[in-house]
Amino acid sequence: MFTEQDFKKTIREIPDFPKEGILFYDVTTLLKNPEAYGELITQMAESLRALDVDVIVGPEARGFVVGAPVAYAVGAGLVLARKPGKLPAEVFSLSYGLEYGSDSLEIHRDAIKPGMRVAICDDLLATGGTALATAKLVEQMGAEVVGLRFAIELLDLNGRERLKDYDVISFIKY
Amino acid sequence: MFTEQDFKKTIREIPDFPKEGILFYDVTTLLKNPEAYGELITQMAESLRALDVDVIVGPEARGFVVGAPVAYAVGAGLVLARKPGKLPAEVFSLSYGLEYGSDSLEIHRDAIKPGMRVAICDDLLATGGTALATAKLVEQMGAEVVGLRFAIELLDLNGRERLKDYDVISFIKY
Repeated sequence: MFTEQDFKKTIREIPDFPKEGILFYDVTTLLKNPEAYGELITQMAESLRALDVDVIVGPEARGFVVGAPVAYAVGAGLVLARKPGKLPAEVFSLSYGLEYGSDSLEIHRDAIKPGMRVAICDDLLATGGTALATAKLVEQMGAEVVGLRFAIELLDLNGRERLKDYDVISFIKY
Repeated sequence: MFTEQDFKKTIREIPDFPKEGILFYDVTTLLKNPEAYGELITQMAESLRALDVDVIVGPEARGFVVGAPVAYAVGAGLVLARKPGKLPAEVFSLSYGLEYGSDSLEIHRDAIKPGMRVAICDDLLATGGTALATAKLVEQMGAEVVGLRFAIELLDLNGRERLKDYDVISFIKY
């Protein structure tokens, strides 16, 4: 089985991206590695197995990259949380604050039904803003957020504290 | 096994989207259906099984939704083809014409190596412009495009003709 150290060996570290002083952890070098990608998705799926998940919600766009195969692996449906204007049918929408300005996420109205058991998957837990907004949106639609799963977690940004009401697991911690 | 008709029952048809006179086939209602989504990914993966694929390339963003689980299912790596400015390391880039204006796709330089066997997966084959650009970009990087797989194909738009040099399979034809 892949350990956290094995995963870390596959992640590229890029200094000063997107701006000076930031060390960026590039998950794309993990994704292109068949063994590492397969292990990551399998471990994420295993961590959800007992939770009887109906659908996985993946926030655009890198949330699709982990959420889609996890949905496939656990036998759940996949629901897209997208930026405004991308979904073709009626949506529920939620705006949330970012470091600078704000952003919105939309989910199709008929994609989440009251009582559904929903897990949220994304590549990165940073401040937790996007994840919390996604969870709140799912709850406003009457469903239950049974877990949040992240490939990478940036511990210093303390996103886990914002998500303290939820079952949160990340697989690669920096 | 799901037939094409079974898949079609799960796809929402939206008249006059994105503009009047266009009938839009909404794949999100298939994705949220666990049985349909699982069957689609399994059938796409089976169609690639004999081709000994090293990596799947998925064009942003809905290409991730089919490409990521197919990569997982066949045990391949996943390479993202993204819009300009989204990838953090050095890229190869290709511009291509659209109905109005042009667009570009980028792939990390180190993600595709000469001699690799590459399959391209996307949700929709329409005019084939994005798929052809993705294939050309992969070839410019020295790799071989061994197959292109699409969930939905719009037959009237004749994208298959533009891709006639390739092994193309789609699963839901309109």
